[in-house]
Amino acid sequence: MLNKEEITYISSRLDFWDNLSKSEINLLENNIANVSYKKGFNLHSSDSECLGVLLIKSGELRVYILSEDGREVTLYRLSSSDVCVLSASCILNSITFDVHIDAEIDTDAYLINIGAFSKLSSHNIYVENFAYKNTIERFSDVMWAMEQILFMSFDKRLAIFLFDEITKTNSLKLNITQEQIAKYIGSAREVVSRMLKVFQSEGILEQSRGSIHILDKEKLRELI
Amino acid sequence: MLNKEEITYISSRLDFWDNLSKSEINLLENNIANVSYKKGFNLHSSDSECLGVLLIKSGELRVYILSEDGREVTLYRLSSSDVCVLSASCILNSITFDVHIDAEIDTDAYLINIGAFSKLSSHNIYVENFAYKNTIERFSDVMWAMEQILFMSFDKRLAIFLFDEITKTNSLKLNITQEQIAKYIGSAREVVSRMLKVFQSEGILEQSRGSIHILDKEKLRELI
Repeated sequence: MLNKEEITYISSRLDFWDNLSKSEINLLENNIANVSYKKGFNLHSSDSECLGVLLIKSGELRVYILSEDGREVTLYRLSSSDVCVLSASCILNSITFDVHIDAEIDTDAYLINIGAFSKLSSHNIYVENFAYKNTIERFSDVMWAMEQILFMSFDKRLAIFLFDEITKTNSLKLNITQEQIAKYIGSAREVVSRMLKVFQSEGILEQSRGSIHILDKEKLRELI
Repeated sequence: MLNKEEITYISSRLDFWDNLSKSEINLLENNIANVSYKKGFNLHSSDSECLGVLLIKSGELRVYILSEDGREVTLYRLSSSDVCVLSASCILNSITFDVHIDAEIDTDAYLINIGAFSKLSSHNIYVENFAYKNTIERFSDVMWAMEQILFMSFDKRLAIFLFDEITKTNSLKLNITQEQIAKYIGSAREVVSRMLKVFQSEGILEQSRGSIHILDKEKLRELI
């Protein structure tokens, strides 16, 4: 059972809360669980059962699509205090595509189970509306990713990715493999490898096994 | 002013109608106009004013994104009886991307003007919900287009496009240029040209100025 503080936090993140009846609040409170996912765990895929709605406490989820031959394209990432609705996409009839969701790092979250959320969303339009609105925000993220992938030159995309990473981790040393970068920006490892070599020859960075050291942040920024 | 028959038709397409008050219906009825767009007309772009919600009577609209250097990627197309909400995206705060909308052929539609729709959608959650639901259906279309562009081999994409066209027009002769095909499937004219030549050499089709004649429908289907 959740404590009062947790309920207060959760209710502040779910903007339909004030439009719930007493019994709906009761139903919801009895169907929220604490969940933890280890780094690399696949929470959701086209084959898996529909999980429910997640409210992330800490960690990071990556949402991506997967081709038949195993290529991945990252659509967006979610972190602390974000709500993940696509893990409940089975109850939203208008959604006819499949995504995969992985824990990028160890992740703790509240999970509203699918049965309860389905019941609430079909009886209370504010809950349905919340799910739609959240999904449309992610639609905007996907459009941004799509424009990046389709329109932006590859050196710029890679530079933006590296710059975001050093800003996010607040460190010039990134512990990341070429394979991972390729996944994140929706490219092939060979293409990433080639461009990193170009950046290295220009003195922007230095590579070692499993990590990249940014030497010239200003030059990296100029590429963006 | 719209006649009774038109109102009946429009109300059957807008599933929030039954949840409108008398005065809201009145507002709506007084703010729907008949509009016509000539083939090639650009209804909506990042620069243009927000138009409103369109209900298509006849014709076809194409929704696409445009790169800085002028490349287009088609997201989806709308035709008779479809509702176009992204032409009112300015009032949906969760939408932060820009699309372009063109009339592909001469198109007639009902237009709910943006002022009235904005008023209804901010006061009536069923109207807001309708706009969201419609947008999410388009999100699914976009994901489909994205998977096609990113994951599918180009010969397959082109074959699917041609097969869809002959099915839709019920004719083996397609009046379409390489430039148009490139736009529709999010590619470059040169790439389309090269693949059409391959198809031609395999006896699948024959090209002449501004049209393509499918000679072997079965062989085209096998590519899909």
